[in-house]
Amino acid sequence: MRKTLEINGERLQRRIARLAEIGAIEGGGCARLALSDADKAGRDLVCEWMRELGLEISIDAIGNVVGTRAGRQPGLAVMTGSHIDTVRTGGRYDGNLGVLAGLEVVATLNDARIETEYPLAVAFFTNEEGARFAPDMMGSLVFTGVLGLDDALRTVGIDGSTVNENLVRIGYAGDAPTPAVTPRAFVELHVEQGPVLDYGGIEIGVVESVQGISWAEIEIHGISNHAGTTPMALRRDAGWVAGAIIHFVRELANEIGGNQVSTVGRIEFFPNLINVVPNRATLTVDLRNTDETLLRGAESRLDTFLETLRVAEKVQITTRRLARFEPVIFAPEMTGRIERIAQAQGLSTRRMPSGAGHDAQMLAAVCPTAMIFIPSVDGISHNVLEYSHPQHIEAGANVLLSVLCELTGSA
Amino acid sequence: MRKTLEINGERLQRRIARLAEIGAIEGGGCARLALSDADKAGRDLVCEWMRELGLEISIDAIGNVVGTRAGRQPGLAVMTGSHIDTVRTGGRYDGNLGVLAGLEVVATLNDARIETEYPLAVAFFTNEEGARFAPDMMGSLVFTGVLGLDDALRTVGIDGSTVNENLVRIGYAGDAPTPAVTPRAFVELHVEQGPVLDYGGIEIGVVESVQGISWAEIEIHGISNHAGTTPMALRRDAGWVAGAIIHFVRELANEIGGNQVSTVGRIEFFPNLINVVPNRATLTVDLRNTDETLLRGAESRLDTFLETLRVAEKVQITTRRLARFEPVIFAPEMTGRIERIAQAQGLSTRRMPSGAGHDAQMLAAVCPTAMIFIPSVDGISHNVLEYSHPQHIEAGANVLLSVLCELTGSA
Repeated sequence: MRKTLEINGERLQRRIARLAEIGAIEGGGCARLALSDADKAGRDLVCEWMRELGLEISIDAIGNVVGTRAGRQPGLAVMTGSHIDTVRTGGRYDGNLGVLAGLEVVATLNDARIETEYPLAVAFFTNEEGARFAPDMMGSLVFTGVLGLDDALRTVGIDGSTVNENLVRIGYAGDAPTPAVTPRAFVELHVEQGPVLDYGGIEIGVVESVQGISWAEIEIHGISNHAGTTPMALRRDAGWVAGAIIHFVRELANEIGGNQVSTVGRIEFFPNLINVVPNRATLTVDLRNTDETLLRGAESRLDTFLETLRVAEKVQITTRRLARFEPVIFAPEMTGRIERIAQAQGLSTRRMPSGAGHDAQMLAAVCPTAMIFIPSVDGISHNVLEYSHPQHIEAGANVLLSVLCELTGSA
Repeated sequence: MRKTLEINGERLQRRIARLAEIGAIEGGGCARLALSDADKAGRDLVCEWMRELGLEISIDAIGNVVGTRAGRQPGLAVMTGSHIDTVRTGGRYDGNLGVLAGLEVVATLNDARIETEYPLAVAFFTNEEGARFAPDMMGSLVFTGVLGLDDALRTVGIDGSTVNENLVRIGYAGDAPTPAVTPRAFVELHVEQGPVLDYGGIEIGVVESVQGISWAEIEIHGISNHAGTTPMALRRDAGWVAGAIIHFVRELANEIGGNQVSTVGRIEFFPNLINVVPNRATLTVDLRNTDETLLRGAESRLDTFLETLRVAEKVQITTRRLARFEPVIFAPEMTGRIERIAQAQGLSTRRMPSGAGHDAQMLAAVCPTAMIFIPSVDGISHNVLEYSHPQHIEAGANVLLSVLCELTGSA
């Protein structure tokens, strides 16, 4: 490993700031929902940078973009990357950092005129967030063949339009085949999005696993009625049932403890009027655990509770699974490599699970994969106040550089 | 009292059916939110009928419409009426029945060429439902001088437009003075909107009182964050707090018991995404009781609970009172008159409170007032399935006819 080879932290920060101007929202964050006009503008900018850096761009039918730097020999590329779509109230680092740090690694290699043995590819995957289209991590799911292309393309988003319509509209329905050719290895740099590294004063998280995720949409049908004249005992109040579910899922997470988290992030009442008992309510439940057995237990206890509510409240309840991912364990040779390199650079490290889902967990099914985390101040994420210190961004990108140099055979 | 004088039930049903065509929604109900285009069309139709019946129409600055049939002597009119606005998923009887039965009484007097001693007026009041603009019963509040005209006119509705804009737009900003000249007496015929008469097999409800109503909008500010990476203990989840409030207000109603009811009919989360802990939630709480002391107790216990939540969950909570009406007791000479007349017509009666708010409760502050209820099948209300049997509608309108004949001095 060339000890003197280092990325240019200021150049990386400039790219992060420039990309954050697209879909910028008050407070310094970004709103670039997948396949929106803002997402298109972000994609165009990153593709322009890829071309400037001499990368050969390929785009597949779900809109995943891969920019490849040739190696001394052809064959499977070592891949890095992440995503550039955001939630509606997202920050500027989530996803973007992994993609732009990949470009920064390429720029560093270009500047030093380093040829690698194997090709090096930087990718950004479509709709990692799932904030507009479910499931999340859609691009990497199709890339690795877990989700069929047609199923993904016909997905209807929260605004009623399909993935396919939007891909065509923004000009990112490409012709590279899916599932894609398997990379030689995959490494993703990402902000932690949680408080563990920041509160622990640790510089680099060596991600060993990813939490399993269970997303469900629950729809309750009761009977709408007058809020003043209907005795409590005669109500079939879909809104109250929704409230009882919100109340229950926190108790569930607290009782299971450990890594278990639960969130009700979305809700709607119908007709949604102050003086009408709601006849319909929909809400989403997001359950996560690093232990598949515990996660299944949480799902099962929620199902039992819904059945109890159905009988007691005389309502209909239907549950639609929006996404389900089992916990993923990363390849030990990859996590060991990241840990060794970070420590050799004088950085403090912690082995940890990822609380969020990432494209890397899809890649883990097809090639040796791991992730590098850097601290998120106060663990704030999916929020315009998301922030990571420049020195941590630089440290993370330098670890990524060295890991990629080793994997591509340039070290 | 002329024993042979009876209203024409079929003619009344035809008017009900014709008015229900305006703003008709699937299932046989109506959506004529106050001051909407559909409300304007309904108003135009009722005004046309008023003119056909020879009534002199006056419209005041809040859009209340009064059609007056002259008496043998000038002076204060005996008034009947109700409202023709509906909730978004309303039935065809709520409000409309009281207005159209008033017109049917006029038609019956016209057909029989009966002159009354005092004038007889049929009114419909603006925005009784409050489903678009708060407070509800806005028209009768201004009519009786409890609410100032300017305050009412500048009220902003759920779609962001004001009462004044909409009144001007639909052409119902009239010039009759508010507060209005006090009527001699006021009688309102209405469907019960609850199950008491139907389940009890009673034909006529003699309404002695109206439940007090307390409407509040609660807004919770927490912190949005990633649903996967934020430990449960570190969350400031505005959505969870909303769920806890929904859960609490039912417990509150059950503990207080008696007439106490509570409803959360409206809710919104922000940003309302599946994988983001909500940073903001708004919801409405509707509390009602016939006993002012118990109602105040319910409000106070809700406030205490909100304070507990504020501290425990580290969120901000603001409460905005949207409406507050104390319970109302109707004039005994009026309720006695209704009871006597109904029983003389061979109808079964029950003295009862009203669970819903009505324009009559505002009029009760300025003149002798009471209400006549007829059964609602299964108590279903604010729902397209709302239904009252034709024989009950006819019976109620005949009681109204006799009561108005007595009060106007034509009996």
